[in-house]
Amino acid sequence: MNRLTIAVDTMGGDLGAEAAVEGAVRAVEEFGNVHLVLVGPEDELAGLLKKHSHTGRIEILHAPDVILPSESPTLAFRRKKESSIVVGLKHVKDGHAGGFVSAGSTGALLTGATVLIGRQQGIERPALGTLLPTPKGFTLLMDSGANMDAKPSWLKQFGEMGAEYMQRCMGVTNPRVGLINVGSEEEKGNAAAKEAFLLLKESGLNFIGNIEGREIPAGAVDVAVCDGFTGNVILKFMEGFAKTMMGMIKEEITSSPISSIGGMLAKGAFRKLKKRFDYREVGGAPFLGLNHIVIKAHGSSDALAIKNAIRQCIVFEKGK
Amino acid sequence: MNRLTIAVDTMGGDLGAEAAVEGAVRAVEEFGNVHLVLVGPEDELAGLLKKHSHTGRIEILHAPDVILPSESPTLAFRRKKESSIVVGLKHVKDGHAGGFVSAGSTGALLTGATVLIGRQQGIERPALGTLLPTPKGFTLLMDSGANMDAKPSWLKQFGEMGAEYMQRCMGVTNPRVGLINVGSEEEKGNAAAKEAFLLLKESGLNFIGNIEGREIPAGAVDVAVCDGFTGNVILKFMEGFAKTMMGMIKEEITSSPISSIGGMLAKGAFRKLKKRFDYREVGGAPFLGLNHIVIKAHGSSDALAIKNAIRQCIVFEKGK
Repeated sequence: MNRLTIAVDTMGGDLGAEAAVEGAVRAVEEFGNVHLVLVGPEDELAGLLKKHSHTGRIEILHAPDVILPSESPTLAFRRKKESSIVVGLKHVKDGHAGGFVSAGSTGALLTGATVLIGRQQGIERPALGTLLPTPKGFTLLMDSGANMDAKPSWLKQFGEMGAEYMQRCMGVTNPRVGLINVGSEEEKGNAAAKEAFLLLKESGLNFIGNIEGREIPAGAVDVAVCDGFTGNVILKFMEGFAKTMMGMIKEEITSSPISSIGGMLAKGAFRKLKKRFDYREVGGAPFLGLNHIVIKAHGSSDALAIKNAIRQCIVFEKGK
Repeated sequence: MNRLTIAVDTMGGDLGAEAAVEGAVRAVEEFGNVHLVLVGPEDELAGLLKKHSHTGRIEILHAPDVILPSESPTLAFRRKKESSIVVGLKHVKDGHAGGFVSAGSTGALLTGATVLIGRQQGIERPALGTLLPTPKGFTLLMDSGANMDAKPSWLKQFGEMGAEYMQRCMGVTNPRVGLINVGSEEEKGNAAAKEAFLLLKESGLNFIGNIEGREIPAGAVDVAVCDGFTGNVILKFMEGFAKTMMGMIKEEITSSPISSIGGMLAKGAFRKLKKRFDYREVGGAPFLGLNHIVIKAHGSSDALAIKNAIRQCIVFEKGK
């Protein structure tokens, strides 16, 4: 494999540049053949890099500005030419890097990537694919937050892009694609879902039909298709529900001395499970349908999450 | 309190008339002042009732036909005049019963109730409110499956109806209403959510703004507003996720002898938690916005769920 260069946005995340820099350092330590370009304010990044001993294969690309999640993505993209998202995406566009990782504004990242990197031929809208943990592996949630109101033809393409990703990058043979809906019958759902069902049925994909919400966590499909509004709500609901449920388990267990002892003995099992539902272990979600790979890392990404988002980039490049 | 008569559909559920009859018998045993009308095939119901000793305050209303969930709700409602849903709703319409409980087709129940029982003045669409368990109580998910594509004005009314229900029936003072969305900022979301935000802001409700998926399970609001497509997906996702997670916990715990012992000691805590997430404990979801109370029980309702759906009817009547 040739050396892969990945640009890493250090400005977008809630935890600041420190987490991104540490994640980058860990990535070069762990992954061979990867070269990283940290995008952000030069002086700050140089200062942060000095704290680490292994900084080979890491360079800095100056970008003094940042796009905030509260800003209008299109306006911010047009106005903030020196923001880390715009500078990083341009670096990819100009052929200096093969991929971009950012924990910044999903909207700005999507707008910027669509304009600067461009859509793959035949793709109307790039979409965000998030890997959800299931008992036996992962299900790709497509779209998990890029397109709020999705047209039926987009939904069909989400299924196609998702299936390709699961096959090439996750090694799934003939991925099962399902359309998230309110019932299994063909005529169920909102207007977009009804039409998308027919398009997916004719697509040549391994389309298993509509799936209900309860089938997603069980891993009934490899690719679960929906609009970005529904997908984003599901994704965040899962995150919150896992946390709330773990908290309730802890509260119940510690409410009696005997079950407290039980809880202590079962600690290792809980730790493993917590890890399974830790978004940092997956690291980030690929924007699929672009000419180069762009990974959206979780807004609260720490060094571990950034490192794993960089790994996602590498996995994606290998799958190409 | 005057005696309350409730009509109970015995035909709609996956578990057949037996579960509904047993649930009804348990309800009259447990709840005073309630009179039940079992709607379904006379001979079958008479035979099932004979198996129980306490059948006072229970009568039978003959309805030989059934509407299946796979049928078109509007067509089935028009054609199947002798179905349990149509016969039961007519019984309420004619003033012989104050409420109706059914585990049958959500769509047929909604169509039938809207036509026969009628909407409350000023309400464009009735909606299904489901109580989701949270660490400190419940959050009402409005709409959880009645209206697939909701107009902004409907979403505002879902908030109003939900707040009224939480106040009157669940004793919540000044209920907090949130709009389910993909971010907390006012301009986020799909077209309907953006407009609904403005309407809810002006509504006079205790509207706390947009809430993200992760805030729902934590109980950040008393009423979580969304269209019935999103709500249905959330509801079923939660059901499936709780089940999957419990299964994964069990698998992890039993994978080592020490944690297995721990699991046994903490068994009581798990049992309590399982009960907390058991939809049968809530029993059913009210259709809000109608002139009489109609409770949609879960399709897989057993006797416990039917009994608790009847209790929901009683609670609703008390709150009026």
